[in-house]
Amino acid sequence: MTNDDDALVVGVDFGTLSGRAVVVRVRDGAELGAAVHEYRHGVVDRVLPATGAALPPDWALQVPQDYRDVLRSAVPAALADAGADPARVIGVGTDFTACTMVPTTADGTPLCELPEFAGNPHAYVKLWRHHAAQPQADRINELAARRREKWLPRYGGLISAEWEFAKGLELLEEAPEVYAAMDRWVEAADWIVWQLTGRYVRNACTAGYKGVYQDGRYPSRDFLAALDPGFADFVADKVEQPIGALGARAGTLTAAAAAWTGLPEGIAVAVGNVDAHVTAPAARAVEPGQMVAIMGTSTCHVMSGDVLREVPGMCGVVDGGIVPGLWGYEAGQSGVGDIFAWYMENQVPPRYHEQASERGISVHDLLSELAAAQEIGEHGLVALDWHSGNRSVLVDHELSGIVVGMTLGTRAEDVYRALVEATAFGTRVIIDSFTDAGVPVRELIVAGGLLRNPLLMQIYADVVNLPLSVIGSAQGPALGSALHAAVAAGAYPDIRAASAAMGAKEPSVYQPVRANVAAYERLFAEYAELYDHFGRGGNDVMHRLRAIRRAAVARREGED
Amino acid sequence: MTNDDDALVVGVDFGTLSGRAVVVRVRDGAELGAAVHEYRHGVVDRVLPATGAALPPDWALQVPQDYRDVLRSAVPAALADAGADPARVIGVGTDFTACTMVPTTADGTPLCELPEFAGNPHAYVKLWRHHAAQPQADRINELAARRREKWLPRYGGLISAEWEFAKGLELLEEAPEVYAAMDRWVEAADWIVWQLTGRYVRNACTAGYKGVYQDGRYPSRDFLAALDPGFADFVADKVEQPIGALGARAGTLTAAAAAWTGLPEGIAVAVGNVDAHVTAPAARAVEPGQMVAIMGTSTCHVMSGDVLREVPGMCGVVDGGIVPGLWGYEAGQSGVGDIFAWYMENQVPPRYHEQASERGISVHDLLSELAAAQEIGEHGLVALDWHSGNRSVLVDHELSGIVVGMTLGTRAEDVYRALVEATAFGTRVIIDSFTDAGVPVRELIVAGGLLRNPLLMQIYADVVNLPLSVIGSAQGPALGSALHAAVAAGAYPDIRAASAAMGAKEPSVYQPVRANVAAYERLFAEYAELYDHFGRGGNDVMHRLRAIRRAAVARREGED
Repeated sequence: MTNDDDALVVGVDFGTLSGRAVVVRVRDGAELGAAVHEYRHGVVDRVLPATGAALPPDWALQVPQDYRDVLRSAVPAALADAGADPARVIGVGTDFTACTMVPTTADGTPLCELPEFAGNPHAYVKLWRHHAAQPQADRINELAARRREKWLPRYGGLISAEWEFAKGLELLEEAPEVYAAMDRWVEAADWIVWQLTGRYVRNACTAGYKGVYQDGRYPSRDFLAALDPGFADFVADKVEQPIGALGARAGTLTAAAAAWTGLPEGIAVAVGNVDAHVTAPAARAVEPGQMVAIMGTSTCHVMSGDVLREVPGMCGVVDGGIVPGLWGYEAGQSGVGDIFAWYMENQVPPRYHEQASERGISVHDLLSELAAAQEIGEHGLVALDWHSGNRSVLVDHELSGIVVGMTLGTRAEDVYRALVEATAFGTRVIIDSFTDAGVPVRELIVAGGLLRNPLLMQIYADVVNLPLSVIGSAQGPALGSALHAAVAAGAYPDIRAASAAMGAKEPSVYQPVRANVAAYERLFAEYAELYDHFGRGGNDVMHRLRAIRRAAVARREGED
Repeated sequence: MTNDDDALVVGVDFGTLSGRAVVVRVRDGAELGAAVHEYRHGVVDRVLPATGAALPPDWALQVPQDYRDVLRSAVPAALADAGADPARVIGVGTDFTACTMVPTTADGTPLCELPEFAGNPHAYVKLWRHHAAQPQADRINELAARRREKWLPRYGGLISAEWEFAKGLELLEEAPEVYAAMDRWVEAADWIVWQLTGRYVRNACTAGYKGVYQDGRYPSRDFLAALDPGFADFVADKVEQPIGALGARAGTLTAAAAAWTGLPEGIAVAVGNVDAHVTAPAARAVEPGQMVAIMGTSTCHVMSGDVLREVPGMCGVVDGGIVPGLWGYEAGQSGVGDIFAWYMENQVPPRYHEQASERGISVHDLLSELAAAQEIGEHGLVALDWHSGNRSVLVDHELSGIVVGMTLGTRAEDVYRALVEATAFGTRVIIDSFTDAGVPVRELIVAGGLLRNPLLMQIYADVVNLPLSVIGSAQGPALGSALHAAVAAGAYPDIRAASAAMGAKEPSVYQPVRANVAAYERLFAEYAELYDHFGRGGNDVMHRLRAIRRAAVARREGED
């Protein structure tokens, strides 16, 4: 098949609000066509559609039929957009948000699709950003630390409320009837592959990063029983399943899935993957030291390494978690683009909106232009980018944002620039942590929507003092999925080879400027001092403000 | 004259941008008429009108003719507004911004009115907010601390760049020709009385608070010579002059001044006074423990006491500085209303402006309404109100503002409320400092524009845990001047008696609410911890950010 110059693959990226399909030429990675399908139910975080019942705060569900609709509509539309003969497609690959969990029967039917559970919110998909399992995560972390579980340092010392075990324990304790009826607790990344192939294969990426699968095993029965006696057989009963390496063939496309997608029955379907991790080979980042930052509303950092190191505050390190044969490292910043969006929506006065509108540009562009005219430090500000908490390296979602240095002369573009700089400083802390732990970062490759902002990109280059490369595709995850499809179909021997042929990177687009690097050293020192003071116990005001806030909200709700 | 039921007095308040005259009935303080005159030149802080020459940063001048124009236009207009027969007016009193300095010849002619000096900016009035004498103030403070000058603790340990000695030394060093030609260095508060009476009498208030006149003497010749040999005779040559007590008669109205004002020649003219201090008796605050907060763009706190105590960070304590026979204490917050105005102008998004406009209310009112619907602490924020530096109790103009606790859910009304609260916490720090130093504050009486905001007033009552009274006049300073005019005219034996008859206070309009007081205790503890950390050396980031900023601006100007 490597001789077939016209062979195609399809990559499908399942995001938070929509799914996107892309048709890619196997020979060179050319993206020939693409299409997007918005989920009909989006994120279900207020009321359950089936009943209209209100959901508690911190909940975020999805409806699995919305995912199947992506296969039915975006895949055929992408083929049409490419003007491609479906018969030339030799494989399909997928990636998904994570950790997004589907409770199913033994045949993979989501429990919410059974009439008896349609009105039970716990029977639906728990989206990655469902945060109601924090109490369970706290107990898991506390017990694991006490027992010195060996897997805990692989996750920077803390596992997340978003992950499989916390959400599973939440299900057991809050909806035991759903837990009892559930045969399988499935990552959506694997569920969609199950839909395509009729076979359930766990992918190595989510099993490791979200399923606490390390060194060939999950947390022990003994550990689970100590959490809750009813949880003792969670792994054995609901979780354990053969693991598939990334790029391996999970199976072949069933007749039913062929009918949905318009693709040929029997073509290769790749093992599932995660949107961030699958982007690395798409950006030609398959060697140790090449960090990919996928920068959007939040930033995810993924990098392969040839050694195992326990990096404080990382999200996880997984054998073969990005590329088979290397240790895959992941870190993250919980708020980046969404901080800028919040700022734009809530803190920018009318005259900027009016001026941007008159000039036919966005407010982001106007503020970036004004901020770009400044010297470094001219705004007199330093900010902490914790408006959405801090994932790496503090792993503390109760932290919050700060701006220091405001005067009566401070303007909107000043704070905007300080916030952009703060997120760059946050990236620098992560890079320094990896380097300090013996996993040096040699190149930073940016993917995601924020690479379109040249001011931001130059600031990042100057702050981290590394050349910035950028991914050469506007749809990194879908391209990465297509690349895994090509490997699964046998068109390339492995992901490295596929990445070299099909990946897309523009190297060293932004170079650090020596004078800027020096100027940012001084500001970074200020950031670092505030970071330690407010993030590591110098002043726990942020935690206390959260507690005060919760009590105040409860008081008001008691009055209403 | 106390039998004359229809006797009137006129008070004239000279502010930063305009002068205001009010006609008041002596018998009961009824305000019968008022008028305002805007200064033609306003604040001269960009170019000198006479030459068009640019002024350096931090400069702020005024044109003395603008003050005479207030006498010529606002006084007759106020009489007309009152429908009053000028013949019934028995006295006139004035108050002024301070420290605002006029360099004059021996007969009181401002040097800028001499043709040879019309083009020299140093020959003009240096307004209180002229801040270019900071280097001189620093040297004065450093030398005074080293020599342990007894007067220094009377000013909370630091004298200001705004005051007579710093500005005088600036004049000597930067414009020796103007300094040499200057016979008298006159507070505008006294200069205007000189214009009205033809006599130069220094008032006890500015002599004490701004002229460093303590225990009957100014800083010594020895001290002055150590600053600069040419400055040795500054006091003897340019400053010394008989002191008049507040409410005393400085002289009588000259024929020329009678012609300007339309008032009878020969009526009593009161000794000059300062806008903040003169407000205290207008608000019936003439006893120890009654603090008046004049809350506008900034806040000035004045209070009389029967003991002399050195309160850290106060602006000053002066014998007879507010009421003859008591020690007058002054403190201040350098930014209050101007922080809210800055926020409104720079950090509130369009939808609030649109909604306010649709409802026909101000954005301030809209934000106050939204903020008022919150429980205390519900916004999860705490701010430091140092956007314009901190006067009391840190005396540090290089400090800057902070907001801690922002999340992606933070809205404009949240930060607005946090800023209002921060200014209330700032007032609480001042009150606590007085109380801790042995000068307890028993009542807080609010004057100034901010008393019109009920949310703000209730927050202050809850934060300081004192009943809040409010002044019963919309023009406190002018009423206070009128009251001093009545004393000068002999209608009352002293200021206490005049205050009782003519002053206006609504007592205990806002009561602290016990639950609110407790809730604010917790938030105040957070404010206090941040206050100490950023204000007392825990982290000098604000000073470093200023230095970084200055260097960056210099770099940019070097490039331009």
